[in-house]
Amino acid sequence: MDGVDFDLREHEPQRIGRKALAVNLSDLAAMAARPVAALVSLCLPRKGGEALAQALYAGLLPLATQFQCAIAGGDVNSWDGPLVINVVALGETVAGRAWQRSGARPGDLILATGSFGGSILGKHLDFTPRVAEALWLADRLQVHAAIDVSDGLSLDLARLCEASGCGAELDVRQIPIADAAHRLEDELRDRVSALDHALADGEDFELLLTAGADDVAGLIQSGRALDCPVTAIGRIVAAPGLWSIDGNARQPLTPRGWQHPLS
Amino acid sequence: MDGVDFDLREHEPQRIGRKALAVNLSDLAAMAARPVAALVSLCLPRKGGEALAQALYAGLLPLATQFQCAIAGGDVNSWDGPLVINVVALGETVAGRAWQRSGARPGDLILATGSFGGSILGKHLDFTPRVAEALWLADRLQVHAAIDVSDGLSLDLARLCEASGCGAELDVRQIPIADAAHRLEDELRDRVSALDHALADGEDFELLLTAGADDVAGLIQSGRALDCPVTAIGRIVAAPGLWSIDGNARQPLTPRGWQHPLS
Repeated sequence: MDGVDFDLREHEPQRIGRKALAVNLSDLAAMAARPVAALVSLCLPRKGGEALAQALYAGLLPLATQFQCAIAGGDVNSWDGPLVINVVALGETVAGRAWQRSGARPGDLILATGSFGGSILGKHLDFTPRVAEALWLADRLQVHAAIDVSDGLSLDLARLCEASGCGAELDVRQIPIADAAHRLEDELRDRVSALDHALADGEDFELLLTAGADDVAGLIQSGRALDCPVTAIGRIVAAPGLWSIDGNARQPLTPRGWQHPLS
Repeated sequence: MDGVDFDLREHEPQRIGRKALAVNLSDLAAMAARPVAALVSLCLPRKGGEALAQALYAGLLPLATQFQCAIAGGDVNSWDGPLVINVVALGETVAGRAWQRSGARPGDLILATGSFGGSILGKHLDFTPRVAEALWLADRLQVHAAIDVSDGLSLDLARLCEASGCGAELDVRQIPIADAAHRLEDELRDRVSALDHALADGEDFELLLTAGADDVAGLIQSGRALDCPVTAIGRIVAAPGLWSIDGNARQPLTPRGWQHPLS
């Protein structure tokens, strides 16, 4: 929704159209689902609607092609209201191997792709959904639970833990902090550390996965590696709640991030 | 979109929610697809949004249950704009047996379910999508082409003909005219006949099918019948265009109905 999820006055429609598909592909990646098709529906402003639709598709179509995702339908209409984009993405999983949020087990390592924080400086629009990484990992690792980080590393991890009926210890020294998070800390001078940006900013669209420590060790020893860095950032524990581990210090960690208005 | 496709000031949200799903189920019926799942996305006004969502679902869910269609996901958010509802319906067809618009052949009979015209008096909101009828017919008749009538009997038939590269003769004396079309003729006194309402009003959400005359005769002779009336209203011809047949009179018929702003 223009003015809520994005702002046409601020960003090019190509990037907005691309993002509308990309966030859905990220949801597929979080389930280790291979993209099959997307349905794109638009409420276009009456004035300039057709040119706007073309610009949205100029951003959206190359991403669909990159991930072999057919644009299989949808609905288009115009009105006096703001631009609305709705995308439904359909994917396929190997039977019994769809990742869910609910399978994490105490003792699991928590793995994260990429780096976190400061997405507002550009990554929130231009990220690459971790589809290829998810399919690569699903072929090689018994993943117990997964989620993509849209609302904040700590908040989305808390959701995974809640769905799994367990908790997590985050080794904050291991969290990969994006350069953009450091830039925000330096530029904003609002006393929010780069680490706090990494924990709470959201729209990183990276994956959090949990898997048994032995399985992770086996994958590392196999010598196979992704182009994308994958970092062990903590461990699943039986007791609910999040804790930060910083050397010898163990403290409760309040999940922070984007809270949806209706949740 | 409130104010375009429906008007919340005029109709109960239960009926609007029901219709949002029903029009999609009608699209599935037009392909002889069995409903599997629907994805429902809502842009809710901030004020009263939650109660509105509940009312929409109070209309939508019984219809989903009736047709064994799971509500499998979607997206919900709120904003300062009007209500927007997007529904994607997923169905499954028997392999190679999905009806399309493009298979009509000269000599085919044109069959219509139900009756036409005057939907504005209520049917446009409260119709039952012809899913059961479509699946029944698909099991018993070699249907060459099909479409559901959303924009107008003559206009949607013209689309079917165009996709099939042929034309049609409509036996106007055979067109089943809804009581509501007669009521409109009587009440509006705008010189639009009940037949013209039937040909052009749209939102009947009935099915138009074409099939070989011998196959239709065989089905009739089998003694099997639907609860819903199915009427032969004309014939596919090789030359493009529509004609009305009224006794011995044969005249060109201009397709009329709802023209989408962007088409």
